[in-house]
Amino acid sequence: MSDLNTLLQRIQPADASARERAQARLDMLTKPPGSLGRLEHLVADLAAISGEGLPRVDPPAVLVFAADHGVAEEGVSAFPQAVTAQMVTNFANGGAAINVFARQVGARLEVIDVGVATPYEMRPGEDRGAVVVDRVRAGSGNIAREDAMTREQALAALMVGSRAVDRAREAGCRCLILGEMGIANTTSSSALLAAFTGVAPEQVVGRGTGIDDAGLKHKCDVIATALGRGTCADDALATLARLGGLEIAAMVGAFLAGAAARLPVLVDGFIATVAALTACRLCPAVRDYLIFGHLSQEAGHGHALSAVGGNPLLQLDLRLGEGSGAALAYPLLDAACRMLAEMATFDDAGVAKGDEEQEQAMVEATGSAAEKASLEQVNMEQVNMEQVNMERK
Amino acid sequence: MSDLNTLLQRIQPADASARERAQARLDMLTKPPGSLGRLEHLVADLAAISGEGLPRVDPPAVLVFAADHGVAEEGVSAFPQAVTAQMVTNFANGGAAINVFARQVGARLEVIDVGVATPYEMRPGEDRGAVVVDRVRAGSGNIAREDAMTREQALAALMVGSRAVDRAREAGCRCLILGEMGIANTTSSSALLAAFTGVAPEQVVGRGTGIDDAGLKHKCDVIATALGRGTCADDALATLARLGGLEIAAMVGAFLAGAAARLPVLVDGFIATVAALTACRLCPAVRDYLIFGHLSQEAGHGHALSAVGGNPLLQLDLRLGEGSGAALAYPLLDAACRMLAEMATFDDAGVAKGDEEQEQAMVEATGSAAEKASLEQVNMEQVNMEQVNMERK
Repeated sequence: MSDLNTLLQRIQPADASARERAQARLDMLTKPPGSLGRLEHLVADLAAISGEGLPRVDPPAVLVFAADHGVAEEGVSAFPQAVTAQMVTNFANGGAAINVFARQVGARLEVIDVGVATPYEMRPGEDRGAVVVDRVRAGSGNIAREDAMTREQALAALMVGSRAVDRAREAGCRCLILGEMGIANTTSSSALLAAFTGVAPEQVVGRGTGIDDAGLKHKCDVIATALGRGTCADDALATLARLGGLEIAAMVGAFLAGAAARLPVLVDGFIATVAALTACRLCPAVRDYLIFGHLSQEAGHGHALSAVGGNPLLQLDLRLGEGSGAALAYPLLDAACRMLAEMATFDDAGVAKGDEEQEQAMVEATGSAAEKASLEQVNMEQVNMEQVNMERK
Repeated sequence: MSDLNTLLQRIQPADASARERAQARLDMLTKPPGSLGRLEHLVADLAAISGEGLPRVDPPAVLVFAADHGVAEEGVSAFPQAVTAQMVTNFANGGAAINVFARQVGARLEVIDVGVATPYEMRPGEDRGAVVVDRVRAGSGNIAREDAMTREQALAALMVGSRAVDRAREAGCRCLILGEMGIANTTSSSALLAAFTGVAPEQVVGRGTGIDDAGLKHKCDVIATALGRGTCADDALATLARLGGLEIAAMVGAFLAGAAARLPVLVDGFIATVAALTACRLCPAVRDYLIFGHLSQEAGHGHALSAVGGNPLLQLDLRLGEGSGAALAYPLLDAACRMLAEMATFDDAGVAKGDEEQEQAMVEATGSAAEKASLEQVNMEQVNMEQVNMERK
C-alpha cells in the first residue's frame, strides 16, 4: 500500500492566503462587489487550489475511464455489456458527446481502458492516440455474488488514475475533467453510495431511461444482495474493492492525484460524484480540490452531492456521463479566471479616483511576497471603493 | 410609425419543420435519447429559430446599450450618473466584465451610446471602434415627474437597436447577446414591469447591493409616483416612452430586429428581460427567438421571467448586467449546436447495426427537401435504436 500512502501524503489543504489575494483583487475590479456571484467564489476557490493569486485553468484535460461490470449479467441494464467497448471505439473516432465538448474547450482528451471486457478493434484510419490501455482485469466481478475486485486490484486501478493525471500534468494541463463509461456502473455506484452513507438502496437507485418499475425493483434487489454480503464503510478501500468498479477506482485515484498536484478537478454526474466521495473518505482534504459541474437527472446524484457537500454549477437535466456535464461547466471556470486576470480595476479604468500607490498595491496583491502589505493597502482601497461603488442596480 | 410596422411585419413564428429535423437527428446520435437534457431542447429551439436543421450560433455578437436616466436625480441609486459614461470608456478600453466574456467566446462587441448624459472622452490609444454613438437624447426624463421620452424618441431608440442588429448581421454574426449599462435603470425597469403586469412595486423592486431598507422604500415610492402619472399597459410603445429608458427602448428594437432576422437572442438579467417582455407585448412572435441566459439576484427578475415565460439556463447569483450572464450562457448554445453537428450516429459509430439507407436518411434529415421521406425513415430508425439503445445507467 506504499503507493497509495505516498499519494495521500502529498495531499495538502488548499491555500487560504492565495484565496485572500484573489478576493482582494476581486474587490478592486470595475463591478459592484460580489456582483459576479458564484463566479467570484469559483475563482477564489481556484486560487486556493493552485496556490496562485491569479489562477489559470487553461488548457484542461478530459480523462474518461472505461471498464465493465460483472453485475451487468444480473440484467440491471437493458443494454449489453458490449456497448462499453463500442463506445471506446466511438471515443477513439471522436464521435461521442465528450469528444465534441472536449474539442469545444480545447481539452486534451484521453480515454483510459481500465478493464473493458469485450475485445474491440480500432478500424483503419482511427486515431488510437486518445485511447490508453492500462487494464487491471477484464471487467469487475459480479457484486451480487463476489467482490468487484481484490484490494490489490483496487490499488492497481487507483494507480491507473494517478498515472493518467501525471500524463495530463506533463502535457501542461491545469484542470482535470473526469468522466466514465461502463455498462451497469450506476448499479455499482448506488451500492457504494448506500454502503458509505447508510441510505437505503431505493433512495439512491435511478430509473435511467430504459428501466421500468419492475427493472428498478430488480436493480434495488441486486444492490441489496450486494450489500448483504457485508459492508465495511469505515474502510473505504475495502468498500471500493467489494462494491465498486475498475473505472470508479481509477477515478478515485485521479481525484487523489489531482488534489496532490494542486489541480482543480471538475466532477461530472452520479458515478463521478460517488468516486469523489470515495476519494474524500480516503483523504478528506481532497474535498478542497473538487468543483461540481452539474446536477444530473440520476436519482441518487442529489444524495451523493449531499454526502460530499457539493453545490453543482449547472442543472441541465443531463444523464449521459462521459464527463459531459463537467466539460460543459468548464467555460465558467475559464471565465472566472479571465475575469480576475483581465478586468480593469476602478483605478485603472478611471471609474474611481486613485493614485499610483493603489495601482502598485493591485499588482502586489497578486504576488505572495508582498502579501501582507498589499492586503493592508487593499483594506484602505475598499473604503475608497465603497464611496465610488459603481453599483447602479 | 412605418419603420416599426415594417420591422414587425418581418417577424414570423419559428420554423416547426426545422425543429423536427433537428429532433430526428438528435435521436440518432450515440447517446441515450434525451440524455443531454436541456441541451437537446436548446438545439431544437435554435433549429426552429434559424430554420436550419443544423443550426450554428458562432460567431456571436454582444450589443451593450448605454444611456442615462433622469430618475437618477431622485436618489434611487447610491451612485452618481457619471458612472454610466465612465463605464462606456471602460468598455472602450476592454476592461469591463463583458469585454472579458466577449473575448472568451470570440464575440464581436459593440457598445451603443443611445443617450449617455455625461460627456466623456476617450483617452489616447483607446480603441473607439467598439463604441458607436447613436444618441437619441442626453438621458431620459425623470419618470417621477415626466415621461422618459416622447413616442417619437422611443421609436428612434427602437431603430438604434435595429441598426445595431443590422451591423451584427452584416458582420456575419449568428447569435445576439444583449446587455445594458445605465445608472438607475432598475428603477425604470421595475416601473415598466409593474405597469405591464399589474404586480405591486414592492414585488419587483430590488435592493441591489448598496440600498438599505430606507433606500428600498424610497425607490418603491418613486416607482409608485411614476405609475401614478397614469399607465397604459395595452399600448406597449406608450408605456415604454412613459416609464422606460433609451437603452431599454434600443434593446426592445434589437429584440424585434433579431427576431425579424431569425437570429437567436440571448437575454441577460432583469433589465434585458423587461425589454424582452416589452418586445413581446409589441409582437408576441418575438418570444420564439428568445433564450434566457440566467436568473439574476435582482428581486424582480423572477417576476419578469414569469411574465415572459422564460426558463433561464444558468443560476449563478449574478447581478452585474452588461450582458454578462447571457455571455456566460453562450457556450451552452455553441455546445448544443456542435453536439448535433459533430456527434456520430449509432450507425456511423458501429454501436448499432444499420445499413447504407440509414446513413443517407441521416444526411437527408438535415435538409428540408427530403424532409418527409427522411422523417418516415427516422421513425423506422427510432425503432431500431430502441433495440440497440446504448443506455447504460
